[in-house]
Amino acid sequence: MSWNRKHLLDIESLTADEITTVLDTARAFKAVGERAIKKVPALRGKTVVNLFVEPSTRTRISFELAAQRLTADVINFTAEASSLKKGETLKDTARNLEALNADFIIIRHSASGAPHFLSRFLKASVINAGDGAHEHPTQALLDVFTIRELKGRVAGLNVTILGDILYSRVARSNIWALLKLGAKVTLCGPATLVPRVFEEMGCRVTHQVEEAIAEADIINLLRIQHERQRKTMFPSIGEYTNLFGLTQARFNRTKPDVLVMHPGPINRGVEIDSELADCPRSVILQQVTNGLAVRMAVLFLLNGGKGPQELAT
Amino acid sequence: MSWNRKHLLDIESLTADEITTVLDTARAFKAVGERAIKKVPALRGKTVVNLFVEPSTRTRISFELAAQRLTADVINFTAEASSLKKGETLKDTARNLEALNADFIIIRHSASGAPHFLSRFLKASVINAGDGAHEHPTQALLDVFTIRELKGRVAGLNVTILGDILYSRVARSNIWALLKLGAKVTLCGPATLVPRVFEEMGCRVTHQVEEAIAEADIINLLRIQHERQRKTMFPSIGEYTNLFGLTQARFNRTKPDVLVMHPGPINRGVEIDSELADCPRSVILQQVTNGLAVRMAVLFLLNGGKGPQELAT
Amino acid sequence: MSWNRKHLLDIESLTADEITTVLDTARAFKAVGERAIKKVPALRGKTVVNLFVEPSTRTRISFELAAQRLTADVINFTAEASSLKKGETLKDTARNLEALNADFIIIRHSASGAPHFLSRFLKASVINAGDGAHEHPTQALLDVFTIRELKGRVAGLNVTILGDILYSRVARSNIWALLKLGAKVTLCGPATLVPRVFEEMGCRVTHQVEEAIAEADIINLLRIQHERQRKTMFPSIGEYTNLFGLTQARFNRTKPDVLVMHPGPINRGVEIDSELADCPRSVILQQVTNGLAVRMAVLFLLNGGKGPQELAT
Repeated sequence: MSWNRKHLLDIESLTADEITTVLDTARAFKAVGERAIKKVPALRGKTVVNLFVEPSTRTRISFELAAQRLTADVINFTAEASSLKKGETLKDTARNLEALNADFIIIRHSASGAPHFLSRFLKASVINAGDGAHEHPTQALLDVFTIRELKGRVAGLNVTILGDILYSRVARSNIWALLKLGAKVTLCGPATLVPRVFEEMGCRVTHQVEEAIAEADIINLLRIQHERQRKTMFPSIGEYTNLFGLTQARFNRTKPDVLVMHPGPINRGVEIDSELADCPRSVILQQVTNGLAVRMAVLFLLNGGKGPQELAT
Repeated sequence: MSWNRKHLLDIESLTADEITTVLDTARAFKAVGERAIKKVPALRGKTVVNLFVEPSTRTRISFELAAQRLTADVINFTAEASSLKKGETLKDTARNLEALNADFIIIRHSASGAPHFLSRFLKASVINAGDGAHEHPTQALLDVFTIRELKGRVAGLNVTILGDILYSRVARSNIWALLKLGAKVTLCGPATLVPRVFEEMGCRVTHQVEEAIAEADIINLLRIQHERQRKTMFPSIGEYTNLFGLTQARFNRTKPDVLVMHPGPINRGVEIDSELADCPRSVILQQVTNGLAVRMAVLFLLNGGKGPQELAT
Repeated sequence: MSWNRKHLLDIESLTADEITTVLDTARAFKAVGERAIKKVPALRGKTVVNLFVEPSTRTRISFELAAQRLTADVINFTAEASSLKKGETLKDTARNLEALNADFIIIRHSASGAPHFLSRFLKASVINAGDGAHEHPTQALLDVFTIRELKGRVAGLNVTILGDILYSRVARSNIWALLKLGAKVTLCGPATLVPRVFEEMGCRVTHQVEEAIAEADIINLLRIQHERQRKTMFPSIGEYTNLFGLTQARFNRTKPDVLVMHPGPINRGVEIDSELADCPRSVILQQVTNGLAVRMAVLFLLNGGKGPQELAT
């Protein structure tokens, strides 16, 4: 159990050991969220900047709360009305934030690789909160945390990711995390959005949803991202639901202990039947709770915390 | 003196005793605002979310400061750029916020009943910060707090509410609070905006402004809300001022100790003469100061505080 | 060494002694920013409001962090969606914020004199964060702090300010601060933007950039503010760069120990060659770091702190 990284840029470069260290640390922080006083002083006097060039309320709030509960000071920097709009480069914006003694820069950006770019010249710790269609590492960490918490393990489980794989940073980070921890990953969706090339990563690819979910221990549904898809990839919402939506009829033919996951926000009636989203096998809201614990763990470890044993003392 | 509620949804369902408990508690918190160090640790480690689906800087800041002074962590969630814009339902948004271990969700929404809806499935405490044309309970509580503070009592006073009653959540909450505490309430404004049906609540209705204010101990002016009125209700701003504005000439014929109130922001020269807004009988800014104390009291009581006697120890 | 002011409205009315007190205090606060725990409790329980009627992410964040590191509570009030949009006057907005027991109101406004206006009726301390083309006092303080820190003194140095002087509040505040501390100030730029009238303040005015920078110890470049200039003043960006931009060729003929400053955000390739912005003689990012220390010092002194000797104890 060890952590020596300064940045969290992606899952691809993490070892299984490092992922497990985050999960173990997050378990300790989840207990903090259940206390009457949900705060620890681990990051007191540290400055965390949320540099969200691409808008996201949900992930920004999760990071903001994670930082607050570690007693850090938090600054929200959004692209609107900012110096980025005045023609300043991302590099200059980031170096200016660092010059304000920022200790952490959490970046969401529409360009793949933006966090890696920043990490090459910043002394602050950089956390990738989603970069283009590349990676969204804390989402994958919270997903495997949730699986491990509820199933007791990740290795050997059948995990099916259903939806737009090609343009999804959530899918890409999940695939890396699941394969590193020994899960068997099946990808399913329209052929245009789930190309065979993913087989080279070690995944099974199918375009038959019934087959994809029949033996699944976990079904991870992706949000249909209208905004990121070219029109030609995608005939219509209604047709997507008909062919790939998780309906009650399809759900009835899955394993009785299957878990349904979704990174949110969900489109009720599109990728998932509205009642299924609220059924006991849906763990969507537990993912949200776990996301906070995982982000506290990431901030804690990047700050030099050495894992949960330190938090306990 | 008692408080056992988990939510503050409206004034209608409160007893006079409960209202009095809030007022007494707020009096203790007003003293906190006058200290050099304006903070108490009552809500340390608690998370307060301002879920403002309808924009409001003024009320949001008042709640935000109230939470900060109780040492809570505060998250501002506004509708712009949020998942609500991506088609997420209000229920899912609220449940997601709760999954982040939010202890309080303060909601402003254009739909009447939105806070009640949330309270039916959330474990967090819900505070109504204004729902459509229905209620705005903390505004009414700060109004009766101000009356009681300056007049020594509420029972038996003549309170005239002047303006758009029909579409005003401020009016509706004030009417409930004033009647429960024993005031005599007169409503006045254009006939289209002050229908006779309000007499059934126990109010006097008149469309003659001079008569409405002649015996008033309190004149509570409402803001002319251009955005919420249908064109047919309302001929022109100038005509409103001529017929119902609180001018110097009209003010001269009121009781010498009358108090002028307004929930703000004021339209100088429309519902009130600009100089009157700044005259010694205007208590508009004292309402703002008291609003902060009342909101601290509400958060404190909903958190399980048992009233001012506890705060004193 | 002394400070008895309640507001920081401009540099023009400060004495050299007062400026020096801010600089000495800022030096102590700069050390705070280099600690592992970057916080002091000097403003605990105080409320700071950022009233930014004109948008600015950079300056707002610097003030917000300064207040956080002094352990104050901070509220951001921006013009969007605010009551100012509903027709409320600036005076009423400010008095409402004060009624919330705000201790500091930091205002940025497009109207020159807006902070002075507020200071005439507010009990809260007012800090000018930039008012129209008038002054931006904390920018000038951080600039002279940076000069003194790196050159050991300000008196006797040749400081050239290059760019749009006429419409620049940064230039105006810098001129006052530099002259009061005994520097020799040269202004340079297009004749339409650098009129001879500045000679009456005690500056040298030239329209020949090579001459302006030849003997300079400091070159302070101003951002070309497209938004504030009338079209007739300014032929084209390309022509500005040709005539007044700090190019490598021009830089080669400056003193070997010259420092290049810029208030940011920089337009790379317009007022400064991109490589020069990153060269060792560029102190642009040090200005940002120093800005935070200077703003902490200003808040500290306005709060009644008596200078760095007090902070040390």
